[in-house]
Amino acid sequence: MSKTIVTFGEIMLRLAPYPYQRFEQANTFKATYGGGEANVAVSLSYLGNQAYFVTRIPDNPIGRSAINRLNSFGVHTEFIVWGGERLGIYFLEHGASIRPSNVIYDRAHSAIAEVELGMFDWPSIFKGREWFHITGITPALSAGAAQVSIEAVQAAKKAGLMVSCDLNYRKKLWSKAQAKETMTQLVEEVDIVIANEADAADVFGIEAEKTNVTSGVIDLKHYRSVAQQLLNYCKAQMVAITLRESISASDNGWSALLYDGADFYTSRKYSIHIVDRVGGGDAFGAGLIHGLIHGWPKKDALDFAVAASALKQTIPGDMNLVREIEVLNIVKGDISGRVQR
Amino acid sequence: MSKTIVTFGEIMLRLAPYPYQRFEQANTFKATYGGGEANVAVSLSYLGNQAYFVTRIPDNPIGRSAINRLNSFGVHTEFIVWGGERLGIYFLEHGASIRPSNVIYDRAHSAIAEVELGMFDWPSIFKGREWFHITGITPALSAGAAQVSIEAVQAAKKAGLMVSCDLNYRKKLWSKAQAKETMTQLVEEVDIVIANEADAADVFGIEAEKTNVTSGVIDLKHYRSVAQQLLNYCKAQMVAITLRESISASDNGWSALLYDGADFYTSRKYSIHIVDRVGGGDAFGAGLIHGLIHGWPKKDALDFAVAASALKQTIPGDMNLVREIEVLNIVKGDISGRVQR
Amino acid sequence: MSKTIVTFGEIMLRLAPYPYQRFEQANTFKATYGGGEANVAVSLSYLGNQAYFVTRIPDNPIGRSAINRLNSFGVHTEFIVWGGERLGIYFLEHGASIRPSNVIYDRAHSAIAEVELGMFDWPSIFKGREWFHITGITPALSAGAAQVSIEAVQAAKKAGLMVSCDLNYRKKLWSKAQAKETMTQLVEEVDIVIANEADAADVFGIEAEKTNVTSGVIDLKHYRSVAQQLLNYCKAQMVAITLRESISASDNGWSALLYDGADFYTSRKYSIHIVDRVGGGDAFGAGLIHGLIHGWPKKDALDFAVAASALKQTIPGDMNLVREIEVLNIVKGDISGRVQR
Amino acid sequence: MSKTIVTFGEIMLRLAPYPYQRFEQANTFKATYGGGEANVAVSLSYLGNQAYFVTRIPDNPIGRSAINRLNSFGVHTEFIVWGGERLGIYFLEHGASIRPSNVIYDRAHSAIAEVELGMFDWPSIFKGREWFHITGITPALSAGAAQVSIEAVQAAKKAGLMVSCDLNYRKKLWSKAQAKETMTQLVEEVDIVIANEADAADVFGIEAEKTNVTSGVIDLKHYRSVAQQLLNYCKAQMVAITLRESISASDNGWSALLYDGADFYTSRKYSIHIVDRVGGGDAFGAGLIHGLIHGWPKKDALDFAVAASALKQTIPGDMNLVREIEVLNIVKGDISGRVQR
Amino acid sequence: MSKTIVTFGEIMLRLAPYPYQRFEQANTFKATYGGGEANVAVSLSYLGNQAYFVTRIPDNPIGRSAINRLNSFGVHTEFIVWGGERLGIYFLEHGASIRPSNVIYDRAHSAIAEVELGMFDWPSIFKGREWFHITGITPALSAGAAQVSIEAVQAAKKAGLMVSCDLNYRKKLWSKAQAKETMTQLVEEVDIVIANEADAADVFGIEAEKTNVTSGVIDLKHYRSVAQQLLNYCKAQMVAITLRESISASDNGWSALLYDGADFYTSRKYSIHIVDRVGGGDAFGAGLIHGLIHGWPKKDALDFAVAASALKQTIPGDMNLVREIEVLNIVKGDISGRVQR
Amino acid sequence: MSKTIVTFGEIMLRLAPYPYQRFEQANTFKATYGGGEANVAVSLSYLGNQAYFVTRIPDNPIGRSAINRLNSFGVHTEFIVWGGERLGIYFLEHGASIRPSNVIYDRAHSAIAEVELGMFDWPSIFKGREWFHITGITPALSAGAAQVSIEAVQAAKKAGLMVSCDLNYRKKLWSKAQAKETMTQLVEEVDIVIANEADAADVFGIEAEKTNVTSGVIDLKHYRSVAQQLLNYCKAQMVAITLRESISASDNGWSALLYDGADFYTSRKYSIHIVDRVGGGDAFGAGLIHGLIHGWPKKDALDFAVAASALKQTIPGDMNLVREIEVLNIVKGDISGRVQR
Repeated sequence: MSKTIVTFGEIMLRLAPYPYQRFEQANTFKATYGGGEANVAVSLSYLGNQAYFVTRIPDNPIGRSAINRLNSFGVHTEFIVWGGERLGIYFLEHGASIRPSNVIYDRAHSAIAEVELGMFDWPSIFKGREWFHITGITPALSAGAAQVSIEAVQAAKKAGLMVSCDLNYRKKLWSKAQAKETMTQLVEEVDIVIANEADAADVFGIEAEKTNVTSGVIDLKHYRSVAQQLLNYCKAQMVAITLRESISASDNGWSALLYDGADFYTSRKYSIHIVDRVGGGDAFGAGLIHGLIHGWPKKDALDFAVAASALKQTIPGDMNLVREIEVLNIVKGDISGRVQR
Repeated sequence: MSKTIVTFGEIMLRLAPYPYQRFEQANTFKATYGGGEANVAVSLSYLGNQAYFVTRIPDNPIGRSAINRLNSFGVHTEFIVWGGERLGIYFLEHGASIRPSNVIYDRAHSAIAEVELGMFDWPSIFKGREWFHITGITPALSAGAAQVSIEAVQAAKKAGLMVSCDLNYRKKLWSKAQAKETMTQLVEEVDIVIANEADAADVFGIEAEKTNVTSGVIDLKHYRSVAQQLLNYCKAQMVAITLRESISASDNGWSALLYDGADFYTSRKYSIHIVDRVGGGDAFGAGLIHGLIHGWPKKDALDFAVAASALKQTIPGDMNLVREIEVLNIVKGDISGRVQR
Repeated sequence: MSKTIVTFGEIMLRLAPYPYQRFEQANTFKATYGGGEANVAVSLSYLGNQAYFVTRIPDNPIGRSAINRLNSFGVHTEFIVWGGERLGIYFLEHGASIRPSNVIYDRAHSAIAEVELGMFDWPSIFKGREWFHITGITPALSAGAAQVSIEAVQAAKKAGLMVSCDLNYRKKLWSKAQAKETMTQLVEEVDIVIANEADAADVFGIEAEKTNVTSGVIDLKHYRSVAQQLLNYCKAQMVAITLRESISASDNGWSALLYDGADFYTSRKYSIHIVDRVGGGDAFGAGLIHGLIHGWPKKDALDFAVAASALKQTIPGDMNLVREIEVLNIVKGDISGRVQR
Repeated sequence: MSKTIVTFGEIMLRLAPYPYQRFEQANTFKATYGGGEANVAVSLSYLGNQAYFVTRIPDNPIGRSAINRLNSFGVHTEFIVWGGERLGIYFLEHGASIRPSNVIYDRAHSAIAEVELGMFDWPSIFKGREWFHITGITPALSAGAAQVSIEAVQAAKKAGLMVSCDLNYRKKLWSKAQAKETMTQLVEEVDIVIANEADAADVFGIEAEKTNVTSGVIDLKHYRSVAQQLLNYCKAQMVAITLRESISASDNGWSALLYDGADFYTSRKYSIHIVDRVGGGDAFGAGLIHGLIHGWPKKDALDFAVAASALKQTIPGDMNLVREIEVLNIVKGDISGRVQR
Repeated sequence: MSKTIVTFGEIMLRLAPYPYQRFEQANTFKATYGGGEANVAVSLSYLGNQAYFVTRIPDNPIGRSAINRLNSFGVHTEFIVWGGERLGIYFLEHGASIRPSNVIYDRAHSAIAEVELGMFDWPSIFKGREWFHITGITPALSAGAAQVSIEAVQAAKKAGLMVSCDLNYRKKLWSKAQAKETMTQLVEEVDIVIANEADAADVFGIEAEKTNVTSGVIDLKHYRSVAQQLLNYCKAQMVAITLRESISASDNGWSALLYDGADFYTSRKYSIHIVDRVGGGDAFGAGLIHGLIHGWPKKDALDFAVAASALKQTIPGDMNLVREIEVLNIVKGDISGRVQR
Repeated sequence: MSKTIVTFGEIMLRLAPYPYQRFEQANTFKATYGGGEANVAVSLSYLGNQAYFVTRIPDNPIGRSAINRLNSFGVHTEFIVWGGERLGIYFLEHGASIRPSNVIYDRAHSAIAEVELGMFDWPSIFKGREWFHITGITPALSAGAAQVSIEAVQAAKKAGLMVSCDLNYRKKLWSKAQAKETMTQLVEEVDIVIANEADAADVFGIEAEKTNVTSGVIDLKHYRSVAQQLLNYCKAQMVAITLRESISASDNGWSALLYDGADFYTSRKYSIHIVDRVGGGDAFGAGLIHGLIHGWPKKDALDFAVAASALKQTIPGDMNLVREIEVLNIVKGDISGRVQR
């Protein structure tokens, strides 16, 4: 049965040179659209749900193109508010092997960064919906966006929705101190907290001992401790942490754990040869929501989320264009890549 | 000295999004042409032989484009029969890492699927030729194609040609029961049977114990047993089996064995980082025919076939555009990829 | 502080099919420009130095395009001499996995191959400059180019510049006997000799025992011996040797050693998943010059050179478009490829 | 105020070489999606209406891609029925100057060609909608499609919708006799008949004297007579005829007339330098429906339709991605192409 | 003899869909760089002069790419100031036939828009230079940019340079009232005023009677009156007015007139089939400066400027990559387009 | 009935930036293959004849690619001689409107330029063939090529073939004096002489009074005089002259006349909007040979040749990929460009 999820955040124009050109070598940019919460909405739509994406978009052909893409993937866009001067942009240079990918943000002064309290009719948006998802990127965009983010989670909670939040710390958008202050307030309304292996430390100062995220080695034991601390700090029902072992820009280990205050669940670890790592965390969030909103056992939801997000990293662009059956095939263990014909 | 080989089957328009786009992301399709027996003919032509490809093609620009490509690679096309309404199409999505490649067939009602007995002048086609090759795909296309396939192998045999057949089971074209019935009849005329690690089971129910082809693990011992059973079943002179260890869509192990009723020959195993796996089996068949038709020792023919087909998987498109000297360099062991300059 | 370096050699139009097409499959060629000494100049410019490239170029749009590219990367081109009939061309087919890359030279009769003594005003060119770099490719182009190369190193030495030379043996340009005769004469003026794992043997007959460069195994001990013999033969201050372990066309080990007559310095070995290996040696030379010209400790210069040249091999084209900070990040050990955002 | 329109027909995958390649020169095909009634729906959606497209589509990635495109342009797709084996395809070679464009249909056996009575729930589809549009292509697809087309127009009429039909004769799909028989039956339910300068003759044998459509000369007087005859034959409220003066494949004159049994309305004639003429007639139909459904004066609706369809021919692809304001600017007379900045 | 010219203004990243896609159809954007004064500098450099472009650019890969392009075309960039957050962007949709091109500015908050008095060392910049050129775009960017523009023209005048200014009114950047106030002040220092057929009216309210610039008809007599009024208003030595007859987005008439207070000079009128009209006015300005700075007769300078700018409109991108000899060939009358071989 | 024609000359790699980039803007070159006599062979093959192309080609992948292309279009390549160092190259910049196309030859030292007497077995080549065609380009390549060209025409004549020659003067290859000396000798064996509007003057000094080929005006009367003089000079059976009215690089008038010593035949004049003018003359030659070799009336052969060559100029690349039926449709007068569907 189809479920209804609302997400709120920014969708940007993404401009990327062809793999593996440097920016200076680019004579064309591949133009796609993406952003944390938009990616979650698209993924949930592709998995068979009714997903609503809420944002503010300028009424020009670039803004309308972003909406066309969302529509194309089945996302409901009727609650998007028109306004503002520009759509945010980010430039992405694809890394390879030992060379890291490079992101340049050109998202200041975007339509969504200039939102104000009262611009969105949250009661209408949330009426009859089941789940609300937001990430730590949205409140980081501006003071206005932070206020509206809190307005949104409170309204969602009040309307009886489950609320999930991916911490998603972005150091190019705000300081750790700013993040801590705002996110502490925001997670008060959150049922499920999602983080990557570095977010808990960056946002709330919760450290996993003896782990160096740039070394490529992940010690699961310490992340259990992080999960416990995070759950305690946020007073949420559940925390999920994705664990990326960055062997190189081309090859990663990918797994996750989930803790509900009682049990720890850990997933299989996938070795991924990466096509496009952007949006991996968002695909995890979408996969987890998909499992939980359909009432699957937590371990199943976690396995699904990890498999979905591993698949994402084999697909160009921010968005995880995979269907439920494809994820389930991976969960069942067929990662042989054999052609079916 | 140049040898003459005839192959009979379908050539399709292949439409593939750029690596590693999903179908939904494609705004252009890379257009090439391919099909099991056409691929074998091209490969044999590139290896220095006179190869004749026989099929039926609609008289429109798409059909003529297919012929242009065959001509471009030196294949003789004068026995191709004009007729029918459409050229078969297949869509190919390139998988990556844990995501499998995806093939969509749109080949029903193609010109070759609608052939009938008597459409081809086999005595003229086979006059003065040395070898005939067919695969299990051609009889799977339609009842008519199955009849003509049997007509062809019988005519080839009668004209004194060596006959080889690659079982090439395609579950999207026919059932195992249908395959068994037709292929049992067809292999009666066949001197050399080629199969991959799954075909013997799929077509004739000949199983290798304890091997799971999607697990990526291949147990050579069991395949010796398969080879023996297959030889007995088909009453052929020789069987050759390719063994693909599917580690992921990007990385495969690749080897083969050959059994002539007396001795088992096994090849080196190559670790391949895959560019395009389609046509790997066809390149093996072409390499094996090339070695055997030139009277090389069986072990040399096998090694050549495996090296040739490993090379194929580093080349985009269905066709193995490599020359004999390039394959021999791999056989000799230079797989370092050093640039010569 | 910005340093001044002069290099002298050929810049060619490079025409490459898209990865990983074979030449016969190409309907477009990617057009870039490169050549050993030009690559060194561009890399040094990107690292923050004032680099001057000296060559001879035909006055037509292809020649002017080559100069535009050099200018684009900040290289000074005012000492380039106009003349000649054509710009040299090289065709590059990108190999993959077990299939080697293939280079076809079409550089005979180029403007630089037809140079004569006296065409370049070396005293003006070298006035106020600090370093001169040349490679064994330039004298290999023609008898005239060999004469002018010796003229250049002598003038550089006379003007008080440090002189470095990368042996860079190219068997498609001259024989080993020719190379030995000319290079023996040329290295008399050279302070720093750079070589890859095969050059010392090819040019001067100095062998590392028990090493087979196509096998992918490198024995460091033997290269110490090579370095000593090479230093003795050339009477240089220093020799540096790059060591490529060619596992396949896609994956290489990459390291280097440096010997100054007293101490051996060895670098870290990088495992590189290769995007474009052409220009790796040039990037090493540029990195080494950058370190030494700025007076860094030899070990630091070596580490920088190896990291810089490892990075090069992740970038398409001949040229190493990386800045000093990027190389230093790799030297410090962050090869995780994590996105910064 | 937004209006609701339903259209019913085929959407195909369109595969086109780059302008102005011949098919034999194509190594990539530009992949878009289009079809008469789908194009009308997209255009009406872009003009600000609620458009519903009804068809039958196979449940595979190619079918889903077609739906994604429709969604992307805001068309409602919830009444599309899943089923069938393949999506129809058409190949388009762009002509230039004196060389005509070339269309190859590969649409036999498509999902929509194999529809049967009862497959669509017309009462639900038409409930609350205002307008139904169909073209002569849909009944031409197959006997089943003809039956369902008639089923549809009858149901629309019964549900109180306005019904429009574009005759759109396609000689590659059926004979004139077949067309006449079926279309005579179909137009019985039609309020507004749309035709191009040749359709009336091809379908109903209604000739304009002394006009040769391939000569590029259009005599308006004779088309008035055609309009009268056509209105009488069809017993419709209104007929509109588009008049294309084919000067060459690159340059056309473009105008139209409308006759309502009382008055003749004629539009301005545009001289168009053509980018893509496919879909011009569909854009006219959409423009006319847009004007009439909003109750504009007939002359205004006609002018709008002609301007809209002239604009279409400057846009690549089948679909007229223009907004109402853009069309109105052309109607007002600004065809200078001056950049606004 | 080579002359020295300084220009000051903005260089933007230009993102354009392929001709003649609409924005919504774009999956890649062609990335080039341009802006009024940067275009003038590039053109003057290509014509053989020493051109200096002054601006402010953010220190990131996009900013550095803009500088690389300028360097590539030989423009001196050493006076460019690093700083600011972003490079301005403009999106360009290529119109065709009756469909106009569409420009979307995303240039607010760019590095150059946030300049302040004192950021540029004008005395050093102008020392030894001969000519300074600015356009009405630069002061329109922001209040700060307006102040710095006036600072620049005053410094240029003081340093003894000739000063030219292209009015270049951009209604998307400022109102006519704002433009009049600032430009009136700025032209006080200007020797040569350049305008298009609409600028004089837009900026200073100077109207040509009976001319409607969107109708495509230009009445030369009225433009003489405009030129006189403009010269009187500005108290400049000379005014030049370009006259574009916009027949459609694809075809334009192109000519100009020059008035020096004594004589009127009028150029030939070119019929241009347009490839890219952006930068046409800038190419005119560069051509005029080139002629005048070399002391050519005014009529010759005007003819050169018109031919140069006509050529520009046949070249993709903002910049006029033509050499003096090519322009002179057009001036001499060879517009036959015959291939030389 | 299929006829046999032999042509002899050079096939080059053609490298062209995308329309309408300048060389300096090109990051990719479109790679095709062409050359006067190769183009004639391809066109004759496409028209349904057996065409043999004779040349000398280096045994490397670039040379083999050229042969693949010829094979692809059905040309017989078995008489091509392997040898030499390089395939000739030409660079082509597409002009537009008033900007001319630009060709840069890089064909010196090509395999065919270095031919010598005796390299080709002309008696075998001509045995059983009907027609031999050559152009003035081949003898212009080198002294050796001139000798072999004369050897070829003499052998053809001796073997009883009809011989045609297109004067095709190329000022970048030889002087008018050189051309006159060699071509005077060569035309002694020629039955049919083909020329463009400038060749007769360039090669033999035969002038059409009062015609300026760069002005775009062609006076037919004068060309009758040229034809008469040319026929007298060459003592041929027939002369044909193509007449190009170069209105701009984008638009040309195109017609031809034929004179057989008795009658003048003149063709229709086509107004062509040019896609690619290269190869227009070759397509004319092929069309004329096609008509004459099949015994058509001279006027029909001329009309066919002009229509064929007009079509060529709407097709990208050197080669006229049109079939007989397509040309006949143009001859019949359908140049409306209406889509058939």
